Amino acid sequence: MAIEFTADLEQLKKLIEEKNSEEISKLMEELHPADIAELMEDMNTEQAKFVFMLLDGEMASDVLVEIPEADRKRFLKELPPEFIASKFLEFMDSDDAADVVADLDEERKIEVLNEIEDFEQAGDIVDLLEYKEDTAGGIMAKELVTVNENWTVAHCLKEISIQAEEVDEIYYVYVIDDQEKLKGVLSLKKLILNPTNTIIKNIYNDEVKMVTTDTRQEEVAEIMDKYNLVAIPVVDDIGRIKGRITFDDVIDLIREEAEKDYQMVSGLTGDVEPGDKVFTLMRARLPWLLIGLFGGILGSLVLGSHESQLSNATELAFFIPLIAATAGNVGVQSSAIVVQSIASGVKEFESTGKRLLKELMVAMATASIFALLIFVYNYFSSGNLSLTFTVSISLFIVIIFASLFGTVIPLLLNRLKIDPALATGPFITTTNDILGLSIYLMIARMFFHFV
Amino acid sequence: MAIEFTADLEQLKKLIEEKNSEEISKLMEELHPADIAELMEDMNTEQAKFVFMLLDGEMASDVLVEIPEADRKRFLKELPPEFIASKFLEFMDSDDAADVVADLDEERKIEVLNEIEDFEQAGDIVDLLEYKEDTAGGIMAKELVTVNENWTVAHCLKEISIQAEEVDEIYYVYVIDDQEKLKGVLSLKKLILNPTNTIIKNIYNDEVKMVTTDTRQEEVAEIMDKYNLVAIPVVDDIGRIKGRITFDDVIDLIREEAEKDYQMVSGLTGDVEPGDKVFTLMRARLPWLLIGLFGGILGSLVLGSHESQLSNATELAFFIPLIAATAGNVGVQSSAIVVQSIASGVKEFESTGKRLLKELMVAMATASIFALLIFVYNYFSSGNLSLTFTVSISLFIVIIFASLFGTVIPLLLNRLKIDPALATGPFITTTNDILGLSIYLMIARMFFHFV
Repeated sequence: MAIEFTADLEQLKKLIEEKNSEEISKLMEELHPADIAELMEDMNTEQAKFVFMLLDGEMASDVLVEIPEADRKRFLKELPPEFIASKFLEFMDSDDAADVVADLDEERKIEVLNEIEDFEQAGDIVDLLEYKEDTAGGIMAKELVTVNENWTVAHCLKEISIQAEEVDEIYYVYVIDDQEKLKGVLSLKKLILNPTNTIIKNIYNDEVKMVTTDTRQEEVAEIMDKYNLVAIPVVDDIGRIKGRITFDDVIDLIREEAEKDYQMVSGLTGDVEPGDKVFTLMRARLPWLLIGLFGGILGSLVLGSHESQLSNATELAFFIPLIAATAGNVGVQSSAIVVQSIASGVKEFESTGKRLLKELMVAMATASIFALLIFVYNYFSSGNLSLTFTVSISLFIVIIFASLFGTVIPLLLNRLKIDPALATGPFITTTNDILGLSIYLMIARMFFHFV
Repeated sequence: MAIEFTADLEQLKKLIEEKNSEEISKLMEELHPADIAELMEDMNTEQAKFVFMLLDGEMASDVLVEIPEADRKRFLKELPPEFIASKFLEFMDSDDAADVVADLDEERKIEVLNEIEDFEQAGDIVDLLEYKEDTAGGIMAKELVTVNENWTVAHCLKEISIQAEEVDEIYYVYVIDDQEKLKGVLSLKKLILNPTNTIIKNIYNDEVKMVTTDTRQEEVAEIMDKYNLVAIPVVDDIGRIKGRITFDDVIDLIREEAEKDYQMVSGLTGDVEPGDKVFTLMRARLPWLLIGLFGGILGSLVLGSHESQLSNATELAFFIPLIAATAGNVGVQSSAIVVQSIASGVKEFESTGKRLLKELMVAMATASIFALLIFVYNYFSSGNLSLTFTVSISLFIVIIFASLFGTVIPLLLNRLKIDPALATGPFITTTNDILGLSIYLMIARMFFHFV
């Protein structure tokens, strides 16, 4: 059961080399488009093109949709406009086709659009390209089934059989009035369960959740997730239905959002896989590491400006890693909690003030425990009272500062409409490192009485 | 548009205090169960119970399903068994009902089950409780519509109208043979589009993706996500259909998995929100911080054992934060890339050896850049050649070690069937801190010629 992999990449590559079209076609027939896409990700453009040539239009376009954007761009660049139009775009849902066209250079875009023979499809694509990428309009498909509220079930069923040809999965039928305004939805189940002479007006569900073309895509995902919707209609500013968004788009969105936050907290600036090129991997890793390097140099300056302190009491240096690490860990925890609660879209009933107060209480309790633990450890292991007090008190203050800092920054970014996840990861660690060291050395000055 | 919040928590709490049932009922009627659930999360048990009493069974159970597990447990603890059975369980889908029952103590579980009047529902719940929580059997619902392959479309439609009453959304009709073995699926669209005398055998889709009751839930999510399935049938070992899993369960799973990984990398051991109790927040934060504390103490011992080195060349201490931070950042990046690629279920065509080689190349390139940068900085800012060489060479080696370490550990954990995400966050930072410091001091010994 589960994912069956009947074809092996090496075997397939060998067949391509031998130009064994017959065997390849046979192999492809057994596979799902998503499986073929997975195999293609590891092919070069020539190999992929060879396989695409052997697939029929429906299959070729289904495969292309499943290929990750970066690889898709790579393939499309090498293919002639008429090939893209006739092999892919004619067979795709409008939203997928618009995504593909959006990836092309301005010049090729127009060439490709003009090669599309199905004029309605070309029109749909052009319409969709008008919407901003990260809005409901930018992710919706134009394929959907609408019925008039005054029709009977029988009339509906006939109409569905006409409209349904170009819609893969129906889920809901959208009920509109004579002005094309969306009135509600009707499930296929309801259609089947009602007598054929029933008027739609009397059976449709008018409590339909909808979004407008300019609703942000994150909000769309939030609504569909919260209300467990398999599809949501998208309307324009005067309530006319323009498209629909389905659950698979939401799954992709949720995954993308989660991955973006994950990358941020782990210090990566892009979506990278171990299989990516060395250059791609480095590009995703260097930016935050450079910030860390900069922070490390700043840290060395802070320490350098207290050189006499450190040379008079070398034991102070021993606890630099502890102070820095704790500051970093506490900061990341605090900011991660805020970022995650913002991402999950939980409605907050607590005010910012109340949240900070709670964070302060958590920080105080944590700080007390840690200060006590390290006090006991240092007291019994070194017996050096100045050191014991310095480390304990610094740790206490550092934990509280790092907590508040980690909580305030993402809240602030969010209010400024900047992605709060920017506050997590290396940024918070680096800032807290430096802050922590400064506090540590200040406290040391009080206990060690340097000249 | 979007999420409409007509009711305000404070207003509602006031109405509850006044025991104004009429107003509350009116308010509730305008809200979606998910909205009521959101309001209830911030109520105490008494308040929630009052609101539950005013809702009809269908609504009350829909609300309960939407309440997060922790809050739900809190409410259920206070409610009498017959209330739970008659107000909630009778109206729920079997999978949700099983989840609720699974949360009860062993003793209450039996009491509640015996209070359920619908004997078939009680049986379904007991059946579902047999499956392990994290398998397809543990998350599937038993509500689904099956039709025999030998029936006509007309017979099917009639049967659906009987079976459909207890299934909220149908999506697919499952086609079985006389032995109840799953043969394929039939979309409602196909049913509507075919003449009523068509035999099902001739129109159903036999290329159906399915899972068995013991398939791990992560794998279920992977398959449904990969093939964009709105629902997947679950069969037993001899192919008889036992239940189905729908897209909303998959969205929950994907979100949960992503949150788990995010928490791990940010050093949290539980799913916490800023609104949680201080104690809950602390419990999620202390474990990793304690590991960090332990690591910090180990670090102090490593540094302490090189006391003479540090007191002879205080400037060495200045770069402790840089070495530690870089080791940590690089390690987290490396492990995050591995964890994320494992989590996304991407099929790897590259061998472990090849991956390590690539990681080594990335590390070498990164390390060279950083070593050069810090060399130039130190050479021109301090002119101290011993320090300049020590820091540069250490940074070079530390980056390579941290990269390999960050890559190998999650791969190793994954092979040992332990969650690879355990390797991210404070664990990798702490280990790399200590490793980095040891390397730094070793290199320093070579360049500073200590007595």
